Amino acid sequence: MIDLYTAPTPNGHKVTVTLDEMGLDYNLIPVDLSKNEQKTPEFLGRNPNGRIPVIVDRANDDFVVFESGAIMLYLAETYGKLYPKDAKERSRMVQWLMFQMGGVGPMMGQANVFYRYFPEKIEPAIARYQNECRRLFEVLDKQLSQTTYLAGENFSLADIANWCWVRTYKWSGVSVEGLPNLNRWLELVGDRPACQSGITKPERLKDPDELVKHARTMVQR
Amino acid sequence: MIDLYTAPTPNGHKVTVTLDEMGLDYNLIPVDLSKNEQKTPEFLGRNPNGRIPVIVDRANDDFVVFESGAIMLYLAETYGKLYPKDAKERSRMVQWLMFQMGGVGPMMGQANVFYRYFPEKIEPAIARYQNECRRLFEVLDKQLSQTTYLAGENFSLADIANWCWVRTYKWSGVSVEGLPNLNRWLELVGDRPACQSGITKPERLKDPDELVKHARTMVQR
Repeated sequence: MIDLYTAPTPNGHKVTVTLDEMGLDYNLIPVDLSKNEQKTPEFLGRNPNGRIPVIVDRANDDFVVFESGAIMLYLAETYGKLYPKDAKERSRMVQWLMFQMGGVGPMMGQANVFYRYFPEKIEPAIARYQNECRRLFEVLDKQLSQTTYLAGENFSLADIANWCWVRTYKWSGVSVEGLPNLNRWLELVGDRPACQSGITKPERLKDPDELVKHARTMVQR
Repeated sequence: MIDLYTAPTPNGHKVTVTLDEMGLDYNLIPVDLSKNEQKTPEFLGRNPNGRIPVIVDRANDDFVVFESGAIMLYLAETYGKLYPKDAKERSRMVQWLMFQMGGVGPMMGQANVFYRYFPEKIEPAIARYQNECRRLFEVLDKQLSQTTYLAGENFSLADIANWCWVRTYKWSGVSVEGLPNLNRWLELVGDRPACQSGITKPERLKDPDELVKHARTMVQR
């Protein structure tokens, strides 16, 4: 059994969707970000970075894994699910997973910070990140004009990782208009039962407004 | 033989250091970022994201790999070098590689943008990213108080990835003072011959001032 410490954010959903797609059993342990539960000594013992999600694999000597992308690869390799046997297909999956880890995730995150949470409205910073997100969406759209899924003809971890972020485009204030391939793929992935279930977990603990208020107080200055 | 399209940046150095550590032969093909050579149709055919580094593995059906973290994992797996046999050790390596891909890299990159390249000096944005980089350095320092290298007692790809970025802390305007374990590790990794050689490639094509000037004109608004 896997213990999953998480919260309802795109990085958290990457792991709940992955576990649901793989059909693995897990204990869902909600972490209340508005109480900074991810910064307690106990949590920092599992992930020194103080971020969700984190898993503890009870079936593998209580092995701890943090960083959403690393958790996805660990689960795929350890449980032999969504782990392409073909080395080239596997590399393509890892390439588009890294594109999300180093691009889509951090840039949508920064767009959210300046668009939603920052105490001042700094228009050039908002524009910088929204433009960069749009550029990244155009890269995805171009790739998806050539292949059904990001890494080729098979659904993969790369789709889960990017979809969990891109689907929140409105929150980042970024448009997906005029990107037909991206929109096709958003629907295609969004129709999967495990993608639909994964993004409902864990339940939101708080009124969304309260969470936004907390995020505003926590944003680094 | 591997063709490597790259430029002298931290992400580029991640791959030259990796190849030098592995002792693999490669053709170094410098990409002139000041001429936007990474945005030509030919280059975009290899990496739709228009970013260095990219490899083409001539020994493997001209297989193309982009995203520095994906290139490192591809080389390790394909050539059986710096690829831990133990699954837990391998996961720890991937976790700290992901920490660099999603944290250290993007945050130092944003610090550089606002501290060095942005047309206006936006103090709250500079402070935000410099503070976040310092926080990430403290996480690394804490981890390195418990282990010799990031993923444990063995040097790994995680050290290469983080070192290639953290060593440029002065350029980001972030201090490493008061972080004894991080400083120990910066020296330990920096003493390795392949780390020393990797960061000299490719040679800088231009006067650094000219590159900064170009970066200033390119920064997204």
